[in-house]
Amino acid sequence: MTGFDPTRLFDASEADFRLAADRIRADAIHTPLLPFGPQDGARRVKVKAENLQPYGSFKIRCGANALAAYNVEALKGGVATGSAGNFAQGLALAARRLGVPVAVHVPDTAAEVKLGAVRALGATVTKHSFADWWTILSTRSTGANDGVFIHPVAEADVVLGNGTVALELLQDWPELDTVIVPVGGGGLICGIALAFRALGRKVRIVAAEIETSIPLTAALAAGEPVKVERGASFVDGIGSTGVLPDMWPLLKDLVDETVVVTTEEAKSALRRLALENHIIVEGAGATALAAALKYAGGTNVVAVLSGGNIDPSVYGDILNGR
Amino acid sequence: MTGFDPTRLFDASEADFRLAADRIRADAIHTPLLPFGPQDGARRVKVKAENLQPYGSFKIRCGANALAAYNVEALKGGVATGSAGNFAQGLALAARRLGVPVAVHVPDTAAEVKLGAVRALGATVTKHSFADWWTILSTRSTGANDGVFIHPVAEADVVLGNGTVALELLQDWPELDTVIVPVGGGGLICGIALAFRALGRKVRIVAAEIETSIPLTAALAAGEPVKVERGASFVDGIGSTGVLPDMWPLLKDLVDETVVVTTEEAKSALRRLALENHIIVEGAGATALAAALKYAGGTNVVAVLSGGNIDPSVYGDILNGR
Repeated sequence: MTGFDPTRLFDASEADFRLAADRIRADAIHTPLLPFGPQDGARRVKVKAENLQPYGSFKIRCGANALAAYNVEALKGGVATGSAGNFAQGLALAARRLGVPVAVHVPDTAAEVKLGAVRALGATVTKHSFADWWTILSTRSTGANDGVFIHPVAEADVVLGNGTVALELLQDWPELDTVIVPVGGGGLICGIALAFRALGRKVRIVAAEIETSIPLTAALAAGEPVKVERGASFVDGIGSTGVLPDMWPLLKDLVDETVVVTTEEAKSALRRLALENHIIVEGAGATALAAALKYAGGTNVVAVLSGGNIDPSVYGDILNGR
Repeated sequence: MTGFDPTRLFDASEADFRLAADRIRADAIHTPLLPFGPQDGARRVKVKAENLQPYGSFKIRCGANALAAYNVEALKGGVATGSAGNFAQGLALAARRLGVPVAVHVPDTAAEVKLGAVRALGATVTKHSFADWWTILSTRSTGANDGVFIHPVAEADVVLGNGTVALELLQDWPELDTVIVPVGGGGLICGIALAFRALGRKVRIVAAEIETSIPLTAALAAGEPVKVERGASFVDGIGSTGVLPDMWPLLKDLVDETVVVTTEEAKSALRRLALENHIIVEGAGATALAAALKYAGGTNVVAVLSGGNIDPSVYGDILNGR
């Protein structure tokens, strides 16, 4: 039993997203939408700086919203999740306030800077091979008796929490016509797309993928999720060996197209965000901006910078041109 | 003739600051006020991220506002300024739109990254020794026939433009009681303090200085501007050999106290802003946060991060603990 019926999310209403926005207000901030480059041309690009959230990513939005769906009594035995770090931080923060223990299962490729923050919030961290970790996500079972499993992506209240990004975008830039979002599990892009629909706004939804792992591009081409290679890169927050079957019905319907960028393009975007906007992004965020610069469509374009948790030594190397 | 009577600024009204806010809206953004560290204790610190402005500093606010005070006809022969870079960028941006040539005079210690941006906006750049540059600022004469001199600090419309920061702070956090601002020429701290007064708000005004140059601390102790040493440090945007006589009547009256931080404290603040808030600040901005962490007073405290234009190699070295 997955406890998750993706197609029910197509019925999500504006009220559902407004409720999520109210629930997360104590933890998350309304992040700024910053101009990227000149704003006097025919095509304007702005960046939604989710890297400026407390704990450095949009995942703070969904951690609190997911826990709010449960009765505290039901969580006495703890909560468990499988997360490369950012979702785990949001969940751990919300759980700490409720006095609920948290078990975090991560792939051994997860950035140490993220794991340290999770441990500092009182969660226990268990590392797995990437294949074993992906099995945990697919089966919603950690193999341990460590509490209610909360999926970092394929969970209704997680997706609704992510959708609050769209409410802020429409408030700050009603003229936007295109939104480019990095795709990991797909929770962020689906939440944003569903919120635009719920608000009756037609916005082009573009998924950004990094060349080392293109599960969504491959799935859209094949008409169904297919197994893909996952190469190593500094982009650790997105990319997998295949689209989650639970998310496929949503992704297939909500995503208009994908843009695949090279590692060099992502590094260049990371550098430009440092030099021109003075913000630090992790690989997934850089991938979104790189896709916005590569993609020719749209006139009022938003790139969602999903997070900023990158190991300082990796970041320093990229800044220095390596 | 200086064309600047500082004491007249004590009469600035809320309407003056609102006018400035209207004038700069096309160029500057309402920057976010980001939580720094936990927000559930007795003392909360937030950072006003002026480093996220286009061109990376608060100076964009005053460049446009200063030019708006002149008839374009009067500027036909060009405008000149003496600026370490950030003010020059704001002025050059506004002047380019009006078709007015800009001559920028800088100390040879100015960060190359700032000068490149100024040149890219079409301005000419002339380097001087620090002593000669300070003479230009003090006499309001460049020694060349390069147009109307607009002082980067001691100019009424520059100070009013800076004050728009205070309007945003009160909108975002009405409960604030203490604001900590890095002091270079003093234009930013005076503008902010004057705006709070004009709006009838009592806020403690604390000036942040770096140990290598403490002209305001020395002047307040002596009761008048005195000559001080100016040592080298990575903090290039603030610090001088003495308080500008034109600004002294304002600083003496408006600043409640100063906090002097060490270079190591400023570097630590720079690193924490990278790791916890994912933003890049230059030395002056780091100095403001370091002062906020060192200073024991206030319960709702804002540190104004004045800018983010720092040479990447210098930044990388500090991130790596050097």
